[in-house]
Amino acid sequence: MSELKNDRFLRALMRESVDITPVWMMRQAGRYLPEYKATRAKAGSFMDLCKNPELACEVTLQPLERYPLDAAILFSDILTIPDAMGLGLYFSEGEGPRFKNPVRTEKEVMNLPIPDPNDSLGYVMDAVRTIRSALDGSVPLIGFSGSPWTLATYMVEGSSSKEYSNIKAMMYNRPDLMHHLLETTAQSVISYLNAQVEAGAQALMIFDTWGGILSPRDYQEFSLKYMDKIVAGLTREYEGQKIPVVLFTKGGANWAEDMADTGCDALGVDWTVNIGDIRKRVGHRVALQGNMDPGILYAKPERIRTEVETILASYGEGSGHVFNLGHGIHQFVNPEHAGAFIEAVHNLSPKYHK
Amino acid sequence: MSELKNDRFLRALMRESVDITPVWMMRQAGRYLPEYKATRAKAGSFMDLCKNPELACEVTLQPLERYPLDAAILFSDILTIPDAMGLGLYFSEGEGPRFKNPVRTEKEVMNLPIPDPNDSLGYVMDAVRTIRSALDGSVPLIGFSGSPWTLATYMVEGSSSKEYSNIKAMMYNRPDLMHHLLETTAQSVISYLNAQVEAGAQALMIFDTWGGILSPRDYQEFSLKYMDKIVAGLTREYEGQKIPVVLFTKGGANWAEDMADTGCDALGVDWTVNIGDIRKRVGHRVALQGNMDPGILYAKPERIRTEVETILASYGEGSGHVFNLGHGIHQFVNPEHAGAFIEAVHNLSPKYHK
Repeated sequence: MSELKNDRFLRALMRESVDITPVWMMRQAGRYLPEYKATRAKAGSFMDLCKNPELACEVTLQPLERYPLDAAILFSDILTIPDAMGLGLYFSEGEGPRFKNPVRTEKEVMNLPIPDPNDSLGYVMDAVRTIRSALDGSVPLIGFSGSPWTLATYMVEGSSSKEYSNIKAMMYNRPDLMHHLLETTAQSVISYLNAQVEAGAQALMIFDTWGGILSPRDYQEFSLKYMDKIVAGLTREYEGQKIPVVLFTKGGANWAEDMADTGCDALGVDWTVNIGDIRKRVGHRVALQGNMDPGILYAKPERIRTEVETILASYGEGSGHVFNLGHGIHQFVNPEHAGAFIEAVHNLSPKYHK
Repeated sequence: MSELKNDRFLRALMRESVDITPVWMMRQAGRYLPEYKATRAKAGSFMDLCKNPELACEVTLQPLERYPLDAAILFSDILTIPDAMGLGLYFSEGEGPRFKNPVRTEKEVMNLPIPDPNDSLGYVMDAVRTIRSALDGSVPLIGFSGSPWTLATYMVEGSSSKEYSNIKAMMYNRPDLMHHLLETTAQSVISYLNAQVEAGAQALMIFDTWGGILSPRDYQEFSLKYMDKIVAGLTREYEGQKIPVVLFTKGGANWAEDMADTGCDALGVDWTVNIGDIRKRVGHRVALQGNMDPGILYAKPERIRTEVETILASYGEGSGHVFNLGHGIHQFVNPEHAGAFIEAVHNLSPKYHK
């Protein structure tokens, strides 16, 4: 493998010194880019694009050609694991992900397999290898998965949900079954992410999109517990390189200390808290990734620049900050505004790294 | 007016001693009740029901006939004010509220009127008077409004939104216009709520459903500032009776101290925090209303009872707690489970009020 030319992202995650604050954007390969839409049209469905390693590589690299981003992230979906378990993932226009076969009965839960990442998820590993090779050491490649709780919400509801009636009924009435489902999913995530590392992923991120819909007690028992197991089960060093792990629970700022206690390297932070406050709370245990409101990209470049300055100042001096949005970039954002954002982070951050 | 027979709810909001913890449920007059659905079918559309004082009174009283609730809440919608401003509120099945005429241009913002609450909102005052009379002093009647920020999100987006692109563009690019819109809306909310008090409302609640989508800085400037103005402008005593005010920002637990600083009497608390932690943070300044996950009502009564006990213990001894769900009751909940919840609060709470 080629030597890594830009290792700011990995260094910041390990709280090692950097020259400027590294930056990338969640969902940076996405619909706000016309070139993404062109490739997507060529591929067919969203899942066709995910399952085609060459096209997945093409869209992964698109934002890097436009912007001086400090990391690439595998183009894939958080729901590949349940799809490989046989649930039949598909996307209906404007309605988000859906499963043909949601998991609700005891029998359905007990029969869930742990997918072999090099078999039914082999297309993901092919994409990781293809992208890693194409990056040619320019920036590190992030692999990822959904968290067990987040995967379970989709697996049980069968789609996005407003009230989560099915999974909450299972969680409260059949905690034994809920734990079995989460355990199977956690084991699947561990083998999936470790296979991504073997295929070339240089950092890992776990997206707990729906942990924030839980009470603090339920979050501990049904979401954090399984992310903790995953962190303990991951390959943290591979071919002499540390593989940092980022945990991100949207709406989870209240639980930052507990998340840091898992032994992960960094926390994703959404925009509803001051990143400086979270830094004070977690101290030097973890790096922080975030936390600009994705909505600020609707503003003019000058206003975006002010917001970047505010967030850099809130985090303060020293390493341990990876700049990012607090959630995925929105589809109707002007790509020039995204460029102004990336540029502002690089231009305004040197003074925090003297 | 008849003397109030059950004043637990008002006493708890004023942090005066009570015999048991009072309880009511957000959206307690709603689709989970078959009798509500029957009245709704008779009325026509949802707005037809809101605008018919006799039928609005009928549905307000329905949950009180089933359960020993400690408060009634006016049956209405949070979006009556923008409707009275001429935006044309309607509800499309399964999609939530929509406005025929959203407010986006400078001219549209500058032309927004402050509705006369006894004219274009007279139907709400008629409903308050009818309900107050029908309650005959059994329990107090809560009046309410959406917060300026929450009203503004619907007014600018024209509907529910996932990305809030229009309002965030206005907020970041034209803060002057955003403030004008919020100021007009805040003045409208003040005169609307004061008119509800004159018509018979005995407590007031402000629903800031979308304050939680803001960064801490934007929350202060675009949501809390206007709730602060409202609290300062409200009639806090009427005909010798204190009129307590409850502020509820969903997802706003991080800002509890700032919300308490407005001088309101109580905070609504969603279920993503321990109510005991919030109590420690705000001290004796305000009462707290909440905070059970509405999803627990999908559980069996025994499990519901355990959750009630956990929340009562978290709040601890003494007055200042109004038990409630952390958000509105879901439409597919079994009404018997709601009954088990109310009963559990009354049965399990006396030991906290010795």
